[in-house]
Amino acid sequence: MKTNHKKNSAQTPPNTNTTGIARRQFLVGGASVAAASVAMGAGALPKASAKDAIIPKEVPDWSRYLGEGVNSNPYGQPSDFEKGVVRRTVDWLTPTPESSVSFAPLYRMHGIITPNGLHFERHHGGVPEIDPAEHVLLLHGFVDRPLKFSMRDLMRLPSVNRIHFVECAANTGMEWRGAQLNGVQYSHGMVSSSEWTGVKLSTLLKEAGVKDAGKWILVEGADAAGLSRSLPIKKAMDDCIVAYAQNGEMLRPEQGYPVRLIVPGWEGNINVKWLRRLEIGDKPWHHREETSKYTDLMPSGKARQFTWEMEAKSVITSPCPENQLMDKGYHTISGLAWSGAGKIKRVDVSTDGGRNWQPAALDGLVLPKSLTRFSLPWQWNGNPALLQSRAMDETGYVQPTIKQLRDVRGEWSIYHNNAIQTWHLKKDGVSENVQVG
Amino acid sequence: MKTNHKKNSAQTPPNTNTTGIARRQFLVGGASVAAASVAMGAGALPKASAKDAIIPKEVPDWSRYLGEGVNSNPYGQPSDFEKGVVRRTVDWLTPTPESSVSFAPLYRMHGIITPNGLHFERHHGGVPEIDPAEHVLLLHGFVDRPLKFSMRDLMRLPSVNRIHFVECAANTGMEWRGAQLNGVQYSHGMVSSSEWTGVKLSTLLKEAGVKDAGKWILVEGADAAGLSRSLPIKKAMDDCIVAYAQNGEMLRPEQGYPVRLIVPGWEGNINVKWLRRLEIGDKPWHHREETSKYTDLMPSGKARQFTWEMEAKSVITSPCPENQLMDKGYHTISGLAWSGAGKIKRVDVSTDGGRNWQPAALDGLVLPKSLTRFSLPWQWNGNPALLQSRAMDETGYVQPTIKQLRDVRGEWSIYHNNAIQTWHLKKDGVSENVQVG
Repeated sequence: MKTNHKKNSAQTPPNTNTTGIARRQFLVGGASVAAASVAMGAGALPKASAKDAIIPKEVPDWSRYLGEGVNSNPYGQPSDFEKGVVRRTVDWLTPTPESSVSFAPLYRMHGIITPNGLHFERHHGGVPEIDPAEHVLLLHGFVDRPLKFSMRDLMRLPSVNRIHFVECAANTGMEWRGAQLNGVQYSHGMVSSSEWTGVKLSTLLKEAGVKDAGKWILVEGADAAGLSRSLPIKKAMDDCIVAYAQNGEMLRPEQGYPVRLIVPGWEGNINVKWLRRLEIGDKPWHHREETSKYTDLMPSGKARQFTWEMEAKSVITSPCPENQLMDKGYHTISGLAWSGAGKIKRVDVSTDGGRNWQPAALDGLVLPKSLTRFSLPWQWNGNPALLQSRAMDETGYVQPTIKQLRDVRGEWSIYHNNAIQTWHLKKDGVSENVQVG
Repeated sequence: MKTNHKKNSAQTPPNTNTTGIARRQFLVGGASVAAASVAMGAGALPKASAKDAIIPKEVPDWSRYLGEGVNSNPYGQPSDFEKGVVRRTVDWLTPTPESSVSFAPLYRMHGIITPNGLHFERHHGGVPEIDPAEHVLLLHGFVDRPLKFSMRDLMRLPSVNRIHFVECAANTGMEWRGAQLNGVQYSHGMVSSSEWTGVKLSTLLKEAGVKDAGKWILVEGADAAGLSRSLPIKKAMDDCIVAYAQNGEMLRPEQGYPVRLIVPGWEGNINVKWLRRLEIGDKPWHHREETSKYTDLMPSGKARQFTWEMEAKSVITSPCPENQLMDKGYHTISGLAWSGAGKIKRVDVSTDGGRNWQPAALDGLVLPKSLTRFSLPWQWNGNPALLQSRAMDETGYVQPTIKQLRDVRGEWSIYHNNAIQTWHLKKDGVSENVQVG
């Protein structure tokens, strides 16, 4: 066969039999599927007949006519074909939209970066519209030198750039009392991951000079909720970031514009947005968000308090209730794993409800306290399956089953449900949220 | 001083003298400025008097009234205060907007991720509006099994997630004949960096079975320009990605929706968008974009062809013409470095036009063929300065001066200008684009 070097871009390549792509050879070749040992049978994808031309009969309009000019969208937008890929909320969850949540569409997301337009939301007094030229951050209390910082002050200081997840403590919270929400957007969509840019909190604290008695910081937002939390000085000096940018641009309003705290690996609520005040003290404040809220009621009737760290967790984002399998054969099971304790070390995947496990590949960057993408090639034979993923982090901690969690913590909790998720894949390719074991 | 544990978030912290933040102690404390040895004098920031209260006299409205409810923006947008941070174009550069460019606002960007809304654009036939359900990618020519892929086919295959820059070969091109454009957005804004998700091109090629004689691939777009380039099979088998997502969501229309090629480290033009065809051949095609365009006319009158790799380059993004210094004292010189040959190993910064150099810190991830953020703390004494940055990559290649480039390549080039950039910072804090040496 001789190559045709004609310049006409609409030339007709030779007709040919389209072949199924899912062959054994395919898997041998893919370095990213080194963990896979799925033997791909014939018919993994629908066969096309020899008469089926490999190019469409008509050249589509988009190849025939000029498209939109450059800069028709100075701040670009997704394709209209993706307009359903948005954050979603439910109106029955909270009494007011000003104190509510929206969920990220994990089922249509890729890699580990969350686009800023899709980062989940949680507000307690609505999204304030703060003028960065007037905003001030105060640092006072048990310090040698109380300080205030304008945005201009903050942005001339040395900065760091780190990719971290933020997860609401209540993510997956409705699943404590059974499988509730039929979709990964609602069951797990209160986690997102960004490259955060800002000043290390330790930099500001060292500049102020924390007195020996200073052991806690009251972290307070400038929103109408004045949301406040007590942060131990040890964590503050470790890896917290006073962040003003996410994924290359200034914070979005709903993410704390112009400045927020990032407390890597800890529950979202303490990552205070619209940050206006840091007060150093010698003991925790026991404000609302760490007493009546964001504590875990145990079977004994007592509550766990200051359970900040988000423990290792994972979820399969495809297939899932929103992502139906359209046919048998080769598919990639894909999902996200994360741990507030450090890096993800390993993710296992089960297709039979946890009886057998296979190690998934970790695709792309594996960073501490960041989302990590995992995948496993899979040959679906068309029979029902119970799909699960199980994360292990670098400390050796293994993501528990819902039964293991309930055995310890009962069924009164709202927060910190990091149980293994099960999708019940049925014969028609549709998955349902179920609980197993 | 006793800590005040009042719950009222509008409480008044003790009045205090606001202190300058730019002290010696500040620099000692910041781990990210280990490379710095700038002794910060008093008065680095304006002093405030002891009578200056550290909180504003009036509580701002955004702390007093509820803000917008959750999900008022299901696909979020930047703050209105950032509405000037957009891609920009110029109408004199090209005859039509359908074949033109827009530039990313590097002076207001942070970290290494480019938000999708700000990724630079270069189109040759406008932005096609492609229906992903109808789009087909063909793979044919010197192969054992010609193949076609729907988007559904592609998206069920194993994928990779990698952060890479894309830079137009013509970025900084107008500077060959002197300092032309007074701003980093226009001089260097045709480079961006994203986490790309897609199938390795080698995966598709192995599945098709490339014949021994197959040494080149014609890579062709589905836009009205039918843009096509010849890609050596060796690079195709190395690290190229048939990408359908960027930064966690499907490609933006102007970035090739629904699928494009990513050729890591090579000039933007060969990273063909709206990818519709891969034809394997035994020699290059010598189409328009690799003959009359995207070649480099040398002093001899002959042209360099197939100069794909973008060599090591860097630029200071603050200060720069768009980012005026408002006062003397402590500042962070910050910028971006990248190399098509691999990782950035080192970036040096000069404030005297290249006579003396100091090593900058590399902040955040240092990945191959990706943007890398660098910074250097700097005490500006208010005198004029000539700010430069100079990148070195892991191969040992050092970014050249404009004189060194012209000595070899003359002044007829358009593409591949990776010269050291100079900003002439004047007494009023304003910088100008100049050429030195």
